[in-house]
Amino acid sequence: MTPEQVVLATKALEFVPDGSRIGLGSGHTAEAFLRVLAERIRQGLRVRGVPTSERIRQLATELGIPVDTLDGGQPLEVTIDGADEVERGTLNLIKGWGAALVRERVVAAASKRQIIIVTAEKLVDRLGSRGRLPVEVVPFAAPFCRWKIERLDVPGGLQPSLRLANDGRPLVTDNGHWILDCRLQPPEDPAALERALRDIPGVVQTGFFLGTASAVLVAENGGVRVMTR
Amino acid sequence: MTPEQVVLATKALEFVPDGSRIGLGSGHTAEAFLRVLAERIRQGLRVRGVPTSERIRQLATELGIPVDTLDGGQPLEVTIDGADEVERGTLNLIKGWGAALVRERVVAAASKRQIIIVTAEKLVDRLGSRGRLPVEVVPFAAPFCRWKIERLDVPGGLQPSLRLANDGRPLVTDNGHWILDCRLQPPEDPAALERALRDIPGVVQTGFFLGTASAVLVAENGGVRVMTR
Repeated sequence: MTPEQVVLATKALEFVPDGSRIGLGSGHTAEAFLRVLAERIRQGLRVRGVPTSERIRQLATELGIPVDTLDGGQPLEVTIDGADEVERGTLNLIKGWGAALVRERVVAAASKRQIIIVTAEKLVDRLGSRGRLPVEVVPFAAPFCRWKIERLDVPGGLQPSLRLANDGRPLVTDNGHWILDCRLQPPEDPAALERALRDIPGVVQTGFFLGTASAVLVAENGGVRVMTR
Repeated sequence: MTPEQVVLATKALEFVPDGSRIGLGSGHTAEAFLRVLAERIRQGLRVRGVPTSERIRQLATELGIPVDTLDGGQPLEVTIDGADEVERGTLNLIKGWGAALVRERVVAAASKRQIIIVTAEKLVDRLGSRGRLPVEVVPFAAPFCRWKIERLDVPGGLQPSLRLANDGRPLVTDNGHWILDCRLQPPEDPAALERALRDIPGVVQTGFFLGTASAVLVAENGGVRVMTR
Protein backbone atom coordinates (compact mmCIF):
# COMPACT_ATOMS: atom_id res chain seq x y z
CA MET A 1 0.00 0.00 0.00
CA THR A 2 1.23 3.48 -0.83
CA PRO A 3 0.75 6.30 1.71
CA GLU A 4 -1.73 7.88 -0.74
CA GLN A 5 -3.82 4.72 -0.77
CA VAL A 6 -3.87 4.58 3.04
CA VAL A 7 -5.03 8.18 3.28
CA LEU A 8 -7.74 7.56 0.66
CA ALA A 9 -8.93 4.37 2.31
CA THR A 10 -9.06 5.98 5.73
CA LYS A 11 -11.14 8.85 4.36
CA ALA A 12 -13.47 6.38 2.61
CA LEU A 13 -14.16 4.71 5.95
CA GLU A 14 -16.03 7.86 7.00
CA PHE A 15 -18.72 6.83 4.49
CA VAL A 16 -19.18 3.38 6.04
CA PRO A 17 -21.76 3.32 8.87
CA ASP A 18 -21.39 0.81 11.68
CA GLY A 19 -23.63 -2.20 11.14
CA SER A 20 -23.93 -1.73 7.38
CA ARG A 21 -23.67 -4.00 4.35
CA ILE A 22 -21.39 -2.51 1.71
CA GLY A 23 -20.06 -3.23 -1.76
CA LEU A 24 -16.35 -4.01 -2.04
CA GLY A 25 -14.79 -2.77 -5.28
CA SER A 26 -11.91 -4.38 -7.13
CA GLY A 27 -8.47 -3.10 -8.10
CA HIS A 28 -5.34 -1.87 -6.31
CA THR A 29 -6.94 1.06 -4.51
CA ALA A 30 -9.97 -0.97 -3.52
CA GLU A 31 -7.64 -3.63 -2.14
CA ALA A 32 -5.90 -1.02 -0.03
CA PHE A 33 -9.32 -0.04 1.31
CA LEU A 34 -9.92 -3.68 2.24
CA ARG A 35 -6.78 -3.77 4.36
CA VAL A 36 -7.69 -0.58 6.20
CA LEU A 37 -11.27 -1.82 6.62
CA ALA A 38 -10.02 -5.12 8.06
CA GLU A 39 -7.99 -3.23 10.67
CA ARG A 40 -11.07 -1.20 11.63
CA ILE A 41 -13.15 -4.37 11.89
CA ARG A 42 -10.59 -5.83 14.27
CA GLN A 43 -11.13 -2.67 16.36
CA GLY A 44 -14.89 -3.32 16.49
CA LEU A 45 -16.56 -1.95 13.34
CA ARG A 46 -19.40 -4.23 12.23
CA VAL A 47 -19.63 -4.47 8.46
CA ARG A 48 -20.53 -7.14 5.90
CA GLY A 49 -19.10 -6.79 2.40
CA VAL A 50 -20.33 -7.94 -1.02
CA PRO A 51 -17.20 -8.53 -3.15
CA THR A 52 -17.19 -7.49 -6.83
CA SER A 53 -14.71 -10.17 -7.88
CA GLU A 54 -13.53 -13.60 -6.86
CA ARG A 55 -10.14 -12.08 -6.10
CA ILE A 56 -11.66 -9.59 -3.69
CA ARG A 57 -13.81 -12.29 -2.14
CA GLN A 58 -10.70 -14.31 -1.43
CA LEU A 59 -8.74 -11.35 -0.08
CA ALA A 60 -11.63 -10.23 2.14
CA THR A 61 -11.94 -13.73 3.55
CA GLU A 62 -8.21 -13.89 4.25
CA LEU A 63 -8.41 -10.53 6.01
CA GLY A 64 -11.32 -11.63 8.18
CA ILE A 65 -13.93 -9.34 6.59
CA PRO A 66 -17.39 -10.97 6.70
CA VAL A 67 -18.52 -11.50 3.10
CA ASP A 68 -22.08 -11.58 1.87
CA THR A 69 -23.99 -11.93 -1.40
CA LEU A 70 -26.69 -9.73 -2.91
CA ASP A 71 -29.14 -12.31 -1.57
CA GLY A 72 -28.74 -10.63 1.80
CA GLY A 73 -31.12 -7.87 0.72
CA GLN A 74 -31.14 -4.60 -1.17
CA PRO A 75 -30.01 -1.88 -1.11
CA LEU A 76 -26.44 -1.87 0.18
CA GLU A 77 -25.51 1.22 2.19
CA VAL A 78 -22.50 2.21 0.10
CA THR A 79 -19.92 0.81 -2.33
CA ILE A 80 -16.27 1.82 -2.14
CA ASP A 81 -14.53 1.28 -5.47
CA GLY A 82 -11.74 2.56 -7.69
CA ALA A 83 -11.91 3.73 -11.31
CA ASP A 84 -9.70 3.87 -14.39
CA GLU A 85 -10.90 7.32 -15.43
CA VAL A 86 -12.85 10.03 -13.62
CA GLU A 87 -14.11 12.99 -15.63
CA ARG A 88 -13.83 16.25 -13.73
CA GLY A 89 -17.20 17.94 -13.20
CA THR A 90 -19.52 15.13 -14.28
CA LEU A 91 -17.77 12.43 -12.20
CA ASN A 92 -18.54 10.03 -15.03
CA LEU A 93 -16.24 7.02 -14.95
CA ILE A 94 -14.55 4.46 -17.10
CA LYS A 95 -13.97 1.17 -15.30
CA GLY A 96 -13.14 -2.39 -16.17
CA TRP A 97 -9.42 -2.39 -16.88
CA GLY A 98 -9.30 -4.91 -14.04
CA ALA A 99 -12.05 -7.03 -15.66
CA ALA A 100 -14.56 -6.70 -12.78
CA LEU A 101 -16.92 -4.31 -14.54
CA VAL A 102 -20.10 -6.39 -14.49
CA ARG A 103 -20.17 -7.03 -10.75
CA GLU A 104 -18.89 -3.53 -10.01
CA ARG A 105 -21.75 -2.10 -12.04
CA VAL A 106 -24.33 -4.35 -10.39
CA VAL A 107 -23.11 -3.59 -6.88
CA ALA A 108 -23.02 0.13 -7.64
CA ALA A 109 -26.64 -0.05 -8.77
CA ALA A 110 -27.53 -2.06 -5.69
CA SER A 111 -26.02 0.60 -3.37
CA LYS A 112 -27.45 3.85 -2.08
CA ARG A 113 -24.11 5.55 -2.72
CA GLN A 114 -21.00 4.80 -4.75
CA ILE A 115 -17.80 6.34 -3.38
CA ILE A 116 -14.85 6.29 -5.78
CA ILE A 117 -11.26 6.48 -4.51
CA VAL A 118 -8.51 7.34 -6.99
CA THR A 119 -5.07 8.79 -7.29
CA ALA A 120 -4.79 12.00 -9.28
CA GLU A 121 -3.57 10.46 -12.55
CA LYS A 122 -7.02 8.97 -13.07
CA LEU A 123 -8.62 12.42 -13.42
CA VAL A 124 -9.34 13.54 -16.97
CA ASP A 125 -10.97 16.57 -18.52
CA ARG A 126 -12.82 14.43 -21.05
CA LEU A 127 -13.96 10.87 -20.53
CA GLY A 128 -12.06 8.53 -22.82
CA SER A 129 -8.78 10.48 -22.66
CA ARG A 130 -6.81 7.43 -21.55
CA GLY A 131 -7.96 5.76 -24.76
CA ARG A 132 -9.35 2.42 -23.63
CA LEU A 133 -12.90 1.26 -23.01
CA PRO A 134 -13.57 -2.35 -21.93
CA VAL A 135 -16.75 -4.03 -23.17
CA GLU A 136 -17.75 -7.38 -21.64
CA VAL A 137 -19.44 -9.80 -24.03
CA VAL A 138 -20.88 -13.31 -24.15
CA PRO A 139 -18.12 -15.45 -25.75
CA PHE A 140 -20.45 -16.97 -28.36
CA ALA A 141 -21.30 -13.44 -29.52
CA ALA A 142 -17.76 -12.03 -29.49
CA PRO A 143 -17.11 -12.14 -33.27
CA PHE A 144 -20.49 -10.52 -33.94
CA CYS A 145 -20.01 -7.85 -31.24
CA ARG A 146 -16.58 -7.03 -32.61
CA TRP A 147 -17.99 -6.73 -36.13
CA LYS A 148 -20.75 -4.38 -34.90
CA ILE A 149 -18.42 -2.29 -32.74
CA GLU A 150 -16.03 -1.77 -35.64
CA ARG A 151 -18.95 -0.39 -37.63
CA LEU A 152 -20.27 2.08 -35.06
CA ASP A 153 -20.37 5.62 -36.38
CA VAL A 154 -17.86 7.17 -33.97
CA PRO A 155 -15.15 9.71 -34.86
CA GLY A 156 -11.90 7.80 -35.19
CA GLY A 157 -13.80 4.54 -34.80
CA LEU A 158 -13.66 2.10 -31.93
CA GLN A 159 -10.96 -0.49 -32.37
CA PRO A 160 -11.88 -3.57 -30.37
CA SER A 161 -9.35 -6.24 -29.48
CA LEU A 162 -9.97 -9.35 -27.45
CA ARG A 163 -8.27 -9.24 -24.05
CA LEU A 164 -5.97 -12.21 -23.57
CA ALA A 165 -4.78 -13.93 -20.41
CA ASN A 166 -1.13 -14.67 -19.73
CA ASP A 167 -1.44 -18.03 -21.46
CA GLY A 168 -2.46 -16.32 -24.71
CA ARG A 169 -6.05 -17.54 -24.54
CA PRO A 170 -9.04 -15.20 -24.15
CA LEU A 171 -9.28 -13.83 -20.62
CA VAL A 172 -12.41 -15.23 -18.98
CA THR A 173 -14.11 -12.95 -16.46
CA ASP A 174 -15.61 -14.13 -13.17
CA ASN A 175 -18.93 -14.29 -15.05
CA GLY A 176 -17.60 -16.54 -17.81
CA HIS A 177 -17.48 -13.74 -20.38
CA TRP A 178 -14.79 -12.22 -22.59
CA ILE A 179 -13.65 -8.59 -22.82
CA LEU A 180 -13.20 -6.50 -25.94
CA ASP A 181 -10.85 -3.61 -25.16
CA CYS A 182 -11.81 -0.76 -27.43
CA ARG A 183 -9.37 1.97 -28.41
CA LEU A 184 -11.31 5.21 -28.49
CA GLN A 185 -11.10 8.96 -28.64
CA PRO A 186 -13.12 10.94 -26.08
CA PRO A 187 -16.68 10.68 -27.44
CA GLU A 188 -18.86 13.75 -27.87
CA ASP A 189 -21.74 11.98 -26.16
CA PRO A 190 -20.68 9.10 -23.90
CA ALA A 191 -24.29 8.28 -23.01
CA ALA A 192 -25.21 7.81 -26.67
CA LEU A 193 -22.15 5.62 -27.25
CA GLU A 194 -22.93 3.58 -24.15
CA ARG A 195 -26.48 3.07 -25.41
CA ALA A 196 -25.28 2.07 -28.88
CA LEU A 197 -22.90 -0.47 -27.39
CA ARG A 198 -25.48 -1.93 -25.04
CA ASP A 199 -27.95 -2.23 -27.93
CA ILE A 200 -25.66 -4.82 -29.54
CA PRO A 201 -26.97 -8.28 -28.62
CA GLY A 202 -24.28 -10.17 -26.71
CA VAL A 203 -22.87 -7.09 -24.96
CA VAL A 204 -23.29 -7.57 -21.20
CA GLN A 205 -21.72 -4.38 -19.84
CA THR A 206 -19.58 -1.49 -20.98
CA GLY A 207 -16.89 0.29 -18.98
CA PHE A 208 -18.91 3.50 -18.96
CA PHE A 209 -20.27 4.24 -15.47
CA LEU A 210 -22.28 7.38 -16.09
CA GLY A 211 -23.95 9.11 -13.18
CA THR A 212 -23.19 6.31 -10.73
CA ALA A 213 -20.62 8.06 -8.51
CA SER A 214 -21.96 9.92 -5.49
CA ALA A 215 -18.53 11.31 -4.62
CA VAL A 216 -14.94 10.90 -5.76
CA LEU A 217 -12.07 11.03 -3.27
CA VAL A 218 -8.77 12.07 -4.83
CA ALA A 219 -5.37 11.82 -3.20
CA GLU A 220 -3.77 15.26 -3.41
CA ASN A 221 -0.86 16.95 -1.64
CA GLY A 222 -0.80 14.36 1.11
CA GLY A 223 -4.51 14.79 1.78
CA VAL A 224 -7.80 13.97 0.16
CA ARG A 225 -10.02 16.16 -1.96
CA VAL A 226 -13.71 15.24 -2.01
CA MET A 227 -15.33 15.88 -5.38
CA THR A 228 -19.10 15.87 -5.73
CA ARG A 229 -21.36 16.70 -8.66
CA MET B 1 -42.32 -34.42 -36.21
CA THR B 2 -45.95 -33.51 -36.77
CA PRO B 3 -47.25 -33.05 -40.33
CA GLU B 4 -47.63 -29.33 -39.57
CA GLN B 5 -43.97 -29.08 -38.63
CA VAL B 6 -42.90 -30.83 -41.83
CA VAL B 7 -44.96 -28.46 -43.96
CA LEU B 8 -43.55 -25.44 -42.11
CA ALA B 9 -39.98 -26.65 -42.37
CA THR B 10 -40.33 -27.39 -46.06
CA LYS B 11 -41.69 -23.90 -46.70
CA ALA B 12 -38.84 -22.38 -44.65
CA LEU B 13 -36.31 -24.08 -46.92
CA GLU B 14 -37.43 -21.73 -49.71
CA PHE B 15 -35.70 -18.95 -47.75
CA VAL B 16 -32.35 -20.79 -47.62
CA PRO B 17 -30.15 -20.12 -50.67
CA ASP B 18 -27.72 -22.77 -51.84
CA GLY B 19 -24.20 -22.09 -50.57
CA SER B 20 -25.32 -19.93 -47.64
CA ARG B 21 -24.45 -19.74 -43.94
CA ILE B 22 -27.58 -19.68 -41.81
CA GLY B 23 -28.63 -19.45 -38.18
CA LEU B 24 -30.25 -22.53 -36.66
CA GLY B 25 -32.91 -21.74 -34.06
CA SER B 26 -33.79 -23.84 -31.02
CA GLY B 27 -37.02 -25.53 -29.94
CA HIS B 28 -39.32 -28.23 -31.26
CA THR B 29 -40.25 -26.54 -34.54
CA ALA B 30 -36.66 -25.51 -35.20
CA GLU B 31 -35.60 -29.11 -34.60
CA ALA B 32 -38.13 -30.29 -37.18
CA PHE B 33 -36.57 -27.81 -39.59
CA LEU B 34 -33.17 -29.34 -38.89
CA ARG B 35 -34.39 -32.79 -39.90
CA VAL B 36 -35.90 -31.53 -43.13
CA LEU B 37 -32.75 -29.48 -43.83
CA ALA B 38 -30.57 -32.53 -43.23
CA GLU B 39 -32.56 -34.49 -45.82
CA ARG B 40 -32.14 -31.66 -48.34
CA ILE B 41 -28.39 -31.53 -47.64
CA ARG B 42 -28.17 -35.23 -48.37
CA GLN B 43 -29.78 -34.37 -51.70
CA GLY B 44 -27.06 -31.82 -52.48
CA LEU B 45 -27.94 -28.48 -50.80
CA ARG B 46 -24.81 -26.76 -49.54
CA VAL B 47 -25.40 -24.95 -46.24
CA ARG B 48 -23.44 -24.27 -43.08
CA GLY B 49 -25.40 -23.62 -39.88
CA VAL B 50 -24.63 -21.61 -36.73
CA PRO B 51 -26.52 -23.33 -33.87
CA THR B 52 -28.22 -21.22 -31.19
CA SER B 53 -27.84 -23.83 -28.45
CA GLU B 54 -25.60 -26.70 -27.47
CA ARG B 55 -28.56 -29.03 -27.98
CA ILE B 56 -29.03 -27.86 -31.55
CA ARG B 57 -25.30 -28.06 -32.18
CA GLN B 58 -25.35 -31.69 -31.10
CA LEU B 59 -28.46 -32.54 -33.13
CA ALA B 60 -27.11 -30.80 -36.24
CA THR B 61 -23.87 -32.74 -35.94
CA GLU B 62 -25.73 -36.02 -35.55
CA LEU B 63 -27.79 -35.21 -38.63
CA GLY B 64 -24.72 -34.41 -40.72
CA ILE B 65 -25.37 -30.67 -41.03
CA PRO B 66 -22.08 -28.73 -41.23
CA VAL B 67 -21.90 -26.44 -38.20
CA ASP B 68 -20.08 -23.15 -38.00
CA THR B 69 -19.52 -20.32 -35.50
CA LEU B 70 -20.04 -16.58 -35.86
CA ASP B 71 -16.28 -16.41 -36.45
CA GLY B 72 -16.99 -17.52 -40.01
CA GLY B 73 -18.02 -13.98 -40.91
CA GLN B 74 -21.03 -11.67 -40.78
CA PRO B 75 -23.78 -11.41 -41.80
CA LEU B 76 -25.52 -14.76 -42.03
CA GLU B 77 -27.98 -15.06 -44.92
CA VAL B 78 -31.00 -16.02 -42.83
CA THR B 79 -32.00 -17.53 -39.48
CA ILE B 80 -34.86 -20.03 -39.21
CA ASP B 81 -36.25 -20.10 -35.68
CA GLY B 82 -39.40 -20.70 -33.66
CA ALA B 83 -41.11 -18.42 -31.14
CA ASP B 84 -43.27 -18.68 -28.03
CA GLU B 85 -45.52 -15.77 -29.00
CA VAL B 86 -46.05 -13.89 -32.26
CA GLU B 87 -48.11 -10.71 -32.17
CA ARG B 88 -50.34 -10.39 -35.21
CA GLY B 89 -49.59 -7.30 -37.27
CA THR B 90 -46.33 -6.21 -35.66
CA LEU B 91 -44.72 -9.69 -35.78
CA ASN B 92 -43.11 -8.83 -32.46
CA LEU B 93 -42.08 -11.96 -30.59
CA ILE B 94 -41.59 -13.42 -27.17
CA LYS B 95 -38.93 -16.12 -27.09
CA GLY B 96 -36.84 -17.90 -24.50
CA TRP B 97 -39.17 -20.48 -22.98
CA GLY B 98 -36.56 -22.97 -24.22
CA ALA B 99 -33.72 -21.00 -22.57
CA ALA B 100 -31.83 -20.23 -25.80
CA LEU B 101 -32.76 -16.54 -25.96
CA VAL B 102 -29.29 -14.99 -25.84
CA ARG B 103 -27.83 -16.92 -28.76
CA GLU B 104 -31.11 -16.74 -30.67
CA ARG B 105 -31.07 -12.96 -30.30
CA VAL B 106 -27.42 -12.68 -31.34
CA VAL B 107 -27.86 -14.90 -34.37
CA ALA B 108 -31.00 -13.01 -35.39
CA ALA B 109 -29.05 -9.75 -35.23
CA ALA B 110 -26.20 -11.32 -37.20
CA SER B 111 -28.57 -12.40 -40.01
CA LYS B 112 -29.97 -10.47 -42.93
CA ARG B 113 -33.37 -12.03 -42.33
CA GLN B 114 -35.08 -13.87 -39.48
CA ILE B 115 -37.80 -16.30 -40.59
CA ILE B 116 -40.06 -17.54 -37.77
CA ILE B 117 -41.95 -20.81 -38.06
CA VAL B 118 -44.83 -21.45 -35.65
CA THR B 119 -48.03 -23.38 -35.20
CA ALA B 120 -51.18 -21.29 -34.89
CA GLU B 121 -51.49 -21.41 -31.09
CA LYS B 122 -48.46 -19.14 -30.82
CA LEU B 123 -50.30 -16.25 -32.49
CA VAL B 124 -51.63 -13.59 -30.11
CA ASP B 125 -53.44 -10.31 -30.56
CA ARG B 126 -51.34 -8.65 -27.87
CA LEU B 127 -47.75 -9.54 -27.00
CA GLY B 128 -47.61 -11.00 -23.51
CA SER B 129 -50.96 -12.76 -23.73
CA ARG B 130 -49.47 -16.12 -22.82
CA GLY B 131 -48.29 -14.50 -19.59
CA ARG B 132 -44.62 -15.38 -19.37
CA LEU B 133 -41.50 -13.40 -20.26
CA PRO B 134 -38.04 -14.94 -19.71
CA VAL B 135 -35.20 -12.62 -18.66
CA GLU B 136 -31.65 -13.99 -18.70
CA VAL B 137 -29.38 -12.64 -15.96
CA VAL B 138 -25.85 -12.97 -14.62
CA PRO B 139 -26.17 -15.34 -11.61
CA PHE B 140 -24.27 -12.99 -9.26
CA ALA B 141 -26.82 -10.27 -10.06
CA ALA B 142 -29.95 -12.44 -9.89
CA PRO B 143 -31.18 -11.28 -6.44
CA PHE B 144 -30.66 -7.64 -7.43
CA CYS B 145 -32.34 -8.07 -10.82
CA ARG B 146 -35.28 -9.76 -9.17
CA TRP B 147 -35.59 -6.95 -6.65
CA LYS B 148 -35.53 -4.34 -9.44
CA ILE B 149 -37.95 -6.22 -11.68
CA GLU B 150 -40.45 -6.54 -8.83
CA ARG B 151 -40.36 -2.76 -8.46
CA LEU B 152 -40.88 -1.83 -12.11
CA ASP B 153 -43.90 0.39 -12.62
CA VAL B 154 -45.95 -2.00 -14.77
CA PRO B 155 -49.72 -2.60 -14.50
CA GLY B 156 -50.18 -5.81 -12.53
CA GLY B 157 -46.45 -5.91 -11.85
CA LEU B 158 -43.91 -8.38 -13.17
CA GLN B 159 -43.57 -11.42 -10.96
CA PRO B 160 -40.15 -12.94 -11.51
CA SER B 161 -39.32 -16.46 -10.42
CA LEU B 162 -36.04 -18.26 -10.90
CA ARG B 163 -36.29 -21.07 -13.44
CA LEU B 164 -35.17 -24.37 -11.93
CA ALA B 165 -33.75 -27.48 -13.57
CA ASN B 166 -35.14 -30.94 -12.92
CA ASP B 167 -32.75 -31.37 -9.99
CA GLY B 168 -34.28 -28.37 -8.25
CA ARG B 169 -31.22 -26.17 -8.70
CA PRO B 170 -31.21 -23.01 -10.85
CA LEU B 171 -31.29 -23.84 -14.55
CA VAL B 172 -27.96 -22.76 -16.08
CA THR B 173 -28.13 -21.58 -19.69
CA ASP B 174 -25.53 -22.43 -22.34
CA ASN B 175 -23.96 -19.07 -21.49
CA GLY B 176 -23.65 -19.81 -17.77
CA HIS B 177 -26.55 -17.54 -16.81
CA TRP B 178 -29.83 -17.96 -14.95
CA ILE B 179 -33.36 -17.17 -16.12
CA LEU B 180 -36.02 -15.19 -14.29
CA ASP B 181 -39.42 -16.13 -15.68
CA CYS B 182 -41.65 -13.11 -15.27
CA ARG B 183 -45.43 -13.38 -15.07
CA LEU B 184 -46.84 -10.44 -16.96
CA GLN B 185 -49.93 -8.93 -18.48
CA PRO B 186 -49.67 -7.65 -22.07
CA PRO B 187 -47.75 -4.37 -21.67
CA GLU B 188 -48.98 -1.13 -23.22
CA ASP B 189 -45.52 -0.44 -24.59
CA PRO B 190 -43.34 -3.54 -24.97
CA ALA B 191 -40.39 -1.48 -26.25
CA ALA B 192 -40.40 0.67 -23.12
CA LEU B 193 -40.60 -2.38 -20.89
CA GLU B 194 -37.80 -4.07 -22.80
CA ARG B 195 -35.68 -0.94 -22.37
CA ALA B 196 -36.43 -0.74 -18.65
CA LEU B 197 -35.46 -4.38 -18.18
CA ARG B 198 -32.25 -4.05 -20.16
CA ASP B 199 -31.32 -0.97 -18.15
CA ILE B 200 -31.02 -3.14 -15.05
CA PRO B 201 -27.34 -4.03 -14.60
CA GLY B 202 -26.96 -7.81 -14.70
CA VAL B 203 -29.73 -8.38 -17.24
CA VAL B 204 -28.19 -9.97 -20.35
CA GLN B 205 -31.24 -10.42 -22.56
CA THR B 206 -35.01 -10.31 -22.38
CA GLY B 207 -37.44 -12.54 -24.25
CA PHE B 208 -38.76 -9.59 -26.24
CA PHE B 209 -37.71 -9.81 -29.88
CA LEU B 210 -39.14 -6.60 -31.27
CA GLY B 211 -38.80 -5.87 -34.95
CA THR B 212 -36.45 -8.78 -35.59
CA ALA B 213 -38.75 -11.03 -37.65
CA SER B 214 -38.69 -10.55 -41.42
CA ALA B 215 -41.54 -13.01 -41.93
CA VAL B 216 -43.57 -15.48 -39.89
CA LEU B 217 -44.72 -18.78 -41.38
CA VAL B 218 -47.83 -20.18 -39.71
CA ALA B 219 -49.19 -23.67 -40.16
CA GLU B 220 -52.84 -23.32 -41.14
CA ASN B 221 -55.43 -25.66 -42.69
CA GLY B 222 -52.78 -28.08 -43.87
CA GLY B 223 -50.80 -25.31 -45.56
CA VAL B 224 -48.62 -22.37 -44.58
CA ARG B 225 -49.58 -18.74 -44.31
CA VAL B 226 -46.74 -16.26 -44.77
CA MET B 227 -47.14 -13.18 -42.58
CA THR B 228 -45.04 -10.11 -43.20
CA ARG B 229 -45.13 -6.66 -41.62
